[in-house]
Amino acid sequence: MNTVFGNLDHVLLMAPGPSPVAPNVLKALSMPTLGHLDPHCIAVMDAVQEQLRAVCKTRNAVTFPLSGTGSAGMEACFVNLVEPGDHVLIVSNGVFCARMVEVASRLGAVADTVDCPWGRAVDAQAVKEALGRKHYKLLAVVHAETSTGINNPVAELGALVKDSDTLFLVDSVAGLGGVDVRVDEWGIDAFYSGSQKCLSAPPGLAPASFSDAAMESMAKRKTKVPNWYLDVTLIRKYWEGSPRVYHHTGPSNMYYALHQAMDNLLTEGLESSFARHEAMHRRLAQGLEGLGFTPYVKGPGAAPQINLFLPPSGVDANTLRAELRSKHRIEVAGGLGELAGKVIRVGVMGEGAREEPIDRLIAAVEDCIRK
Amino acid sequence: MNTVFGNLDHVLLMAPGPSPVAPNVLKALSMPTLGHLDPHCIAVMDAVQEQLRAVCKTRNAVTFPLSGTGSAGMEACFVNLVEPGDHVLIVSNGVFCARMVEVASRLGAVADTVDCPWGRAVDAQAVKEALGRKHYKLLAVVHAETSTGINNPVAELGALVKDSDTLFLVDSVAGLGGVDVRVDEWGIDAFYSGSQKCLSAPPGLAPASFSDAAMESMAKRKTKVPNWYLDVTLIRKYWEGSPRVYHHTGPSNMYYALHQAMDNLLTEGLESSFARHEAMHRRLAQGLEGLGFTPYVKGPGAAPQINLFLPPSGVDANTLRAELRSKHRIEVAGGLGELAGKVIRVGVMGEGAREEPIDRLIAAVEDCIRK
Repeated sequence: MNTVFGNLDHVLLMAPGPSPVAPNVLKALSMPTLGHLDPHCIAVMDAVQEQLRAVCKTRNAVTFPLSGTGSAGMEACFVNLVEPGDHVLIVSNGVFCARMVEVASRLGAVADTVDCPWGRAVDAQAVKEALGRKHYKLLAVVHAETSTGINNPVAELGALVKDSDTLFLVDSVAGLGGVDVRVDEWGIDAFYSGSQKCLSAPPGLAPASFSDAAMESMAKRKTKVPNWYLDVTLIRKYWEGSPRVYHHTGPSNMYYALHQAMDNLLTEGLESSFARHEAMHRRLAQGLEGLGFTPYVKGPGAAPQINLFLPPSGVDANTLRAELRSKHRIEVAGGLGELAGKVIRVGVMGEGAREEPIDRLIAAVEDCIRK
Repeated sequence: MNTVFGNLDHVLLMAPGPSPVAPNVLKALSMPTLGHLDPHCIAVMDAVQEQLRAVCKTRNAVTFPLSGTGSAGMEACFVNLVEPGDHVLIVSNGVFCARMVEVASRLGAVADTVDCPWGRAVDAQAVKEALGRKHYKLLAVVHAETSTGINNPVAELGALVKDSDTLFLVDSVAGLGGVDVRVDEWGIDAFYSGSQKCLSAPPGLAPASFSDAAMESMAKRKTKVPNWYLDVTLIRKYWEGSPRVYHHTGPSNMYYALHQAMDNLLTEGLESSFARHEAMHRRLAQGLEGLGFTPYVKGPGAAPQINLFLPPSGVDANTLRAELRSKHRIEVAGGLGELAGKVIRVGVMGEGAREEPIDRLIAAVEDCIRK
């Protein structure tokens, strides 16, 4: 026996993902593995699809988790919808929008951006103007920017392309389950999230959904999708075909965990979950502001589930993070990109958006800075 | 509570993957999730890399599981090593070799094949001749063809390109852990497997390894890898960088499971595991031949871990499969491609390569055909 398990801490996960996983989700995860075409595995997959449609507020037939992390969702949306030479418009106000530009460019797309300042919601008027200057195959935006703590106005952006042939691609890796997402009403054509944020399942799956318009766009491609593993048209036959057509070996244990996590969420009710995230966001802000911290995001767009704070004078963000982890076994994240070393990023996500973990974090921060 | 878990059977997994998962691996899977950059998560990742090097018999620095299933391993190897216009030679004697051709072609490579009959090991002489006719960027082969029950002569094929600039790519999704794999000695430059076959972990990870020559080839690319999610040069910084560089959210729970599964394997010893797979293969063959079944593969190359049988006259393969599942809660697989409906495929893999499950399967088959 040479595992390292004896040395592992049980860490309270208060970074903006992964978030704490409920005991019944961990229990589901460890149920016996089923074959990827077993009728009972298919029953779980059917249930997961129905739940995911409810969580995403969509009737899209093509709604299922991809077998990879949230980043695989980004890859899948672009690689299925973009061909070399296509023009795409990406709304950019954080690290994950920048990653979209990289992903699209690697696929040969011409990626224009509407650059907006970090820490503020994107300006829909600027996006409207950019859309007026050129025809785009798709408009892409990150709903919940984990790097800056902003929820971008997806409904407003969707309205700009609603009756056009420009597809609307939305990343809500860090939003789904914690804040409202309305795939159909907002006119979203390609959508992805991650299992490990506000859904509070372990990392490893990318819930995704594609509109009829997105599927038609895939059907009309001039070239095959240059990514067999993430070819949504093939994967669809595994999730929906009658009979199911083998594509890859579906990770059944991860399906169990997502199934249980979405059951927890839907049993609570989506609107209750959103209200809880909002209330816990306020509880956290009140606690840390009382200790001299300043919220990085001010004004509209502040994401309840992703909280960036500038520490009070004399407190170093990275030192604080290290001490929270070593002394209190609590994980918070540091700043990304231009915010590196300047802020702490705190997740109020899923099972972490509850009084006990929030209060434990506030007390631990107080202990670290008051010593 | 609306989960479907109450209705799920506990199925004995005797298809060629996924294989049965040991209780201590399921227990490890359900340990609390850790952050993807947490020092204790990194300790698990370091241990996983060391174990994987031992299991693959390699000193390759770049040896880690990719965050997807075995098919993601195939995608990763080709997308990192092939650019449009590159010529590749694929040895083809089954479904998974054919998939390699599809993957390589979608990436713009010119994929030639050496076609060999199903159910026989590939003819190294024919491969040698093909290599003599044209210069290839890489030679690719499936070590363990899950569709036909053949282990191809990887060492012999590797010797054909050993002192050339042709890279050697090997799929051992269905071999690693159950039969010998020697990445370094056999001159393998790009290697991938799956967590859910002879390693007996749940599906969801693709253990992979890349030689220095493969990494140099990636560094010399004229174009960026058109797949950000599976860009090995970027992922390497997450697994090896000092400090680790965030790429995607590593699925920590899957790492735990793979860590425990490889600990089980290495505690037993690789050679003992190979001997056990061989002995259980004979036990299965003896049992089913006694019931009138005929092995599909005769002669050299028969894979102990993947067993195809033609049923005795009067027994329909698919009816038998269905009854094994419904009456005995045992999964075996059916034929793929040209073997659909003609054979049953039985895995003797990992935890399934033990007397109790083998004997249970033989008894169940007898019950089904003697009724």
